[in-house]
Amino acid sequence: MPRWEPDARARFVVAALQLFTDQGYDDTTVAEIAERAGLTKSTFFRHFSDKREVLAAGQETLSRLLADGITAAPASATPLEAVGAGLAHAAATMTQFNRELAPRLAAVIASSSELQQRDALKRVGMAAAMTDALRARGVPDPVASAAAELGLLAFKEAFAAWVADESPTESPTELADLMHGSLDRLRAAVSQLG
Amino acid sequence: MPRWEPDARARFVVAALQLFTDQGYDDTTVAEIAERAGLTKSTFFRHFSDKREVLAAGQETLSRLLADGITAAPASATPLEAVGAGLAHAAATMTQFNRELAPRLAAVIASSSELQQRDALKRVGMAAAMTDALRARGVPDPVASAAAELGLLAFKEAFAAWVADESPTESPTELADLMHGSLDRLRAAVSQLG
Repeated sequence: MPRWEPDARARFVVAALQLFTDQGYDDTTVAEIAERAGLTKSTFFRHFSDKREVLAAGQETLSRLLADGITAAPASATPLEAVGAGLAHAAATMTQFNRELAPRLAAVIASSSELQQRDALKRVGMAAAMTDALRARGVPDPVASAAAELGLLAFKEAFAAWVADESPTESPTELADLMHGSLDRLRAAVSQLG
Repeated sequence: MPRWEPDARARFVVAALQLFTDQGYDDTTVAEIAERAGLTKSTFFRHFSDKREVLAAGQETLSRLLADGITAAPASATPLEAVGAGLAHAAATMTQFNRELAPRLAAVIASSSELQQRDALKRVGMAAAMTDALRARGVPDPVASAAAELGLLAFKEAFAAWVADESPTESPTELADLMHGSLDRLRAAVSQLG
């Protein structure tokens, strides 16, 4: 029986990010990632199909959180209000761990076209999850897809601002507040589309 | 001196698509693609960096056309009108060749996670090109990014409808008309975002 490793995923992500940063994505093997994490290759492959997937870790969770938040929004919520509920639900799970890893993660992704492609697909998945959750609320197309794309723009902008924020870590600006602000700006922006 | 092959790119795309369909993306080599196209491997590598890039062929051209159309729109055009001009400019270059290849291209992309990732990045590139062209017109953020994302939604919807259209090929529904209709529906949709 494999030993239960409650934080194995996080350890693989941290180890992979260190190695990708130090020696490059292409030159890093799964064996090296496992060794750095103090875990085995077989444990690695229980969590990820390959090294590319390490940096897309959390995609499914994030997509599910966005969708759950949309689903749980009051029936009276407008499409963008429901998206806002999805963003708030996802934001509530983001920790200082996510915030501190983000700049290095972004640098590694920028260094590899393979990782840029994986990251692009991650964003497509997030938009699709939001679109589906909105459709399930009875929001018609293309309102659902438009609301989901605006939600993704708000997520990206707010997350980047959160990561770049230099407030003391004891009292960082709340990610949920930033998402709320981004979505409000987008709501105002659509009235200027013409 | 290599012989000038005016249609080399198209021949590689057609050959690759046939092979990917017949024997799968993973099991197809560049040598096989070149042989099927009746061209050499070195000619292949003058056009594409690897086999994945064959199916992203046209991305740069498409992004440039979208941006050029936006840049050339009248100064009085609203952000969405400028996006519409970009879509129309790109649509004007699409031929029966693109239309006939599209269903097989979509099937091959759906069969490979690697190709799905490449395709996702292609769409990110198209949105980025439109966003940059809008910013250059003085459209502020996040209006520019919102307009670009709506433009991408309109492009996807209209292109899919064009490919699925079963009108006689002598008088197919014009892609530009479909793009115009999709963008109009999105313009109406944003008023329902709440």
